[in-house]
Formats: sequence, C-alpha cells, structure tokens
Amino acid sequence: MTNEELMSLVNRSLFAALGYTDKQGRPSVRRVFCVWHKGLARHLISTNTCSEHVQSLMQNGNACLYFSDDAKFEGLCLYGNVTVHFEEAYRALLWNPGDEKYYPAGISDPDYCVLEFAAESGRFYRYDGKGELTAEMLAESEAGRKFENGYAAQAAG
Amino acid sequence: MTNEELMSLVNRSLFAALGYTDKQGRPSVRRVFCVWHKGLARHLISTNTCSEHVQSLMQNGNACLYFSDDAKFEGLCLYGNVTVHFEEAYRALLWNPGDEKYYPAGISDPDYCVLEFAAESGRFYRYDGKGELTAEMLAESEAGRKFENGYAAQAAG
Repeated sequence: MTNEELMSLVNRSLFAALGYTDKQGRPSVRRVFCVWHKGLARHLISTNTCSEHVQSLMQNGNACLYFSDDAKFEGLCLYGNVTVHFEEAYRALLWNPGDEKYYPAGISDPDYCVLEFAAESGRFYRYDGKGELTAEMLAESEAGRKFENGYAAQAAG
Repeated sequence: MTNEELMSLVNRSLFAALGYTDKQGRPSVRRVFCVWHKGLARHLISTNTCSEHVQSLMQNGNACLYFSDDAKFEGLCLYGNVTVHFEEAYRALLWNPGDEKYYPAGISDPDYCVLEFAAESGRFYRYDGKGELTAEMLAESEAGRKFENGYAAQAAG
C-alpha cells in the first residue's frame, strides 16, 4: 500500500483499536475514537483521565494503534508509545460542543485529557500482501504537517 | 449489559481485535475473522500458521479478544489465552469451500491452523456504563454448549 492509501484508511476511520499492557501485565485493547492525525506518525485521542486504559498507559506507555477497514480487508498496525497531555492547547484542539456531557467541568475538567500516540514503526495488511513502515517513512509522513481532523476533511470531500 | 446482549454483540461481529504481545515484547493487535463461539467463553479463529501473530502466540499465549459495535457504542474485552490447534477436528469444523486459495494443500495444509481463545475474565462498555465478567459467569455461558457459527445462526434469523 502507498502512503496515500494508508492515509486514506486512517482518515476514513472514525475509530481505532488501541493495544496496551494493563496494570496486571495483560494484553488489553480499547476501541477509541481517533480522527486527529499528523500524517501516519501521530494521532490524538480525547478521553477520561480516570479510564483504566489511561491509568495503565501512564504507567507503561508502550502501545499499538490499529486502523482497519473490514470491508476492504485493509489493516494498519502502528507501534509506538502514548503520552498523556493535560495542556490547554491539546484540550482546546479536540474539544467539541456538547463534550460537557462527558466532562461536566468543561475544557479544564481534570478528567479530560488527550492521548498522543507517536508511531515508531508499522505494519500493514491487505488482500495483496503486507509491508512495513519504518521510522524514516513515518517521519517523512508528518514532516511539515500539523494535526488535522482527517475524518472531517475527507467527509467534506 | 446482560449475557444475551453480550452474546448478540459477539454473534453479529464478523471480526474481532486480537491483542497480544509480539516477539519483541510489544503490545500488538491483529484484526481476525471470528464467528465460531462457545458461549462468551471460547472462540475459534482459523489462520495461517506462519503469520507473525501465530508465531508470537505460540511463544506467549496471553491475549485479549475485543468485540465491538461502533454504531451502538458497545464493546467487550475478553482476557485469557490462546491455544494453537492442528487437530483434524478443529480444521474440519472451520474449513470452508474455497479455503484452498489460502491453504493450497487443503485441510491438512501445515500452514492451516485454528486458534482457540479461552476467556478467563472480561470487561464490557456501553453508553450506559461498564461491567465485569467473572470466570464463573464465563463458565456458565459455555456450559452445555458446543462451538457454533454464531454469525450464520443469527443471519439465518
């Protein structure tokens, strides 16, 4: 798959599967809403600080992020790590009208945080074969870009 | 969620996300086709023996299996472990006409194997809250059952 085809998969996915190791040392997965991307390399996810996966990731940030399109048999597993952000800039970027229902205290609610997944490598799967993404390819894919809501951009055509 | 609601989620999912630890010790995820279930407790997946995830799981069988319905905001993460089967009974149960395109030597192709995921506990998520599945609840859900193609059964109505 080309970088454009992989970026299309990422942008049209509303959700991804976040793989991590929980506090009991077990492999765990959470389905996360993930539409903010910086190329293929960085992805932002807003979530509740108190969630089990956030607490586990604060202890051990090693993680993977898997985007897939079941109908097209396309999959991309990115390997890397997660940083938990509480800074205003991240909170403001991902805040949506109505998010008060999840975070009653609003944008500065301590239970509101933003996970940044940074990929170091990747592996993709399609009917026609597999391939690898190296750190260099990932760095190139984010060069000169800023975080964008890729789902909104592609939906707008 | 009730056991019936969880079973409905599992049965109508064609795919699940399998979380495991790869040979490099990293959290990893593969999207797997998963329609054979024994209650909520056991799930079968046919796959290529040579796949990276099978090779990793042969070394470390600890895994999780995540079923989700994005449209309904339902998710179920089962925690347990994977056994890799090569026995005729498993191969025959999951074999479909046309599978020769994946396994050219047919049903006894050494590259054809069946993963059995056995759950020890679980955690579910829905818009109205979360809950836990204990080993006892899982044992109860498979008692007196055999493996069934839950997708075919529910599609047939």
